[in-house]
Amino acid sequence: MYRLYFHRDSERGFEGTYSWLLDELKELKEARESNDRKALEDEFADVIAWLASLANITSIDLEKAALSKYDGKCPKCRHSPCQCTF
Amino acid sequence: MYRLYFHRDSERGFEGTYSWLLDELKELKEARESNDRKALEDEFADVIAWLASLANITSIDLEKAALSKYDGKCPKCRHSPCQCTF
Repeated sequence: MYRLYFHRDSERGFEGTYSWLLDELKELKEARESNDRKALEDEFADVIAWLASLANITSIDLEKAALSKYDGKCPKCRHSPCQCTF
Repeated sequence: MYRLYFHRDSERGFEGTYSWLLDELKELKEARESNDRKALEDEFADVIAWLASLANITSIDLEKAALSKYDGKCPKCRHSPCQCTF
């Protein structure tokens, strides 16, 4: 994602990319409502691509961030499956 | 994520999980505005965790969806880096 889109993402900046990400989330919801499985899969791919773009702009390693917080146990209760009582 | 949270996610359903995901995106923006790098990293982790939960609920393999659409080339122009002229 970095190699593919960083030149464009960095020009667009955080606000613009964040706004695209929100649009993609709306499209994801529409795809879900239309019961089109291929479209839904595509929208999930788009959301994660825009999220990766946003992480690149802020120089955050998305995969590292995810693995460091969710390391196979719930970060709150430290159990798997999670046993938090909300 | 599936093992950790699926029992809870499936009870919450699509709408509830989608709504949590939107909340996490707001928190991500707040973390960005507060210039707290650790908080921002945490929020990216949360957003991807909720996105993974949403994918699990709809029985979509998030990683597979992303790799199948973004296979190292831009899905529109088929170049890397992307050369689309918007």
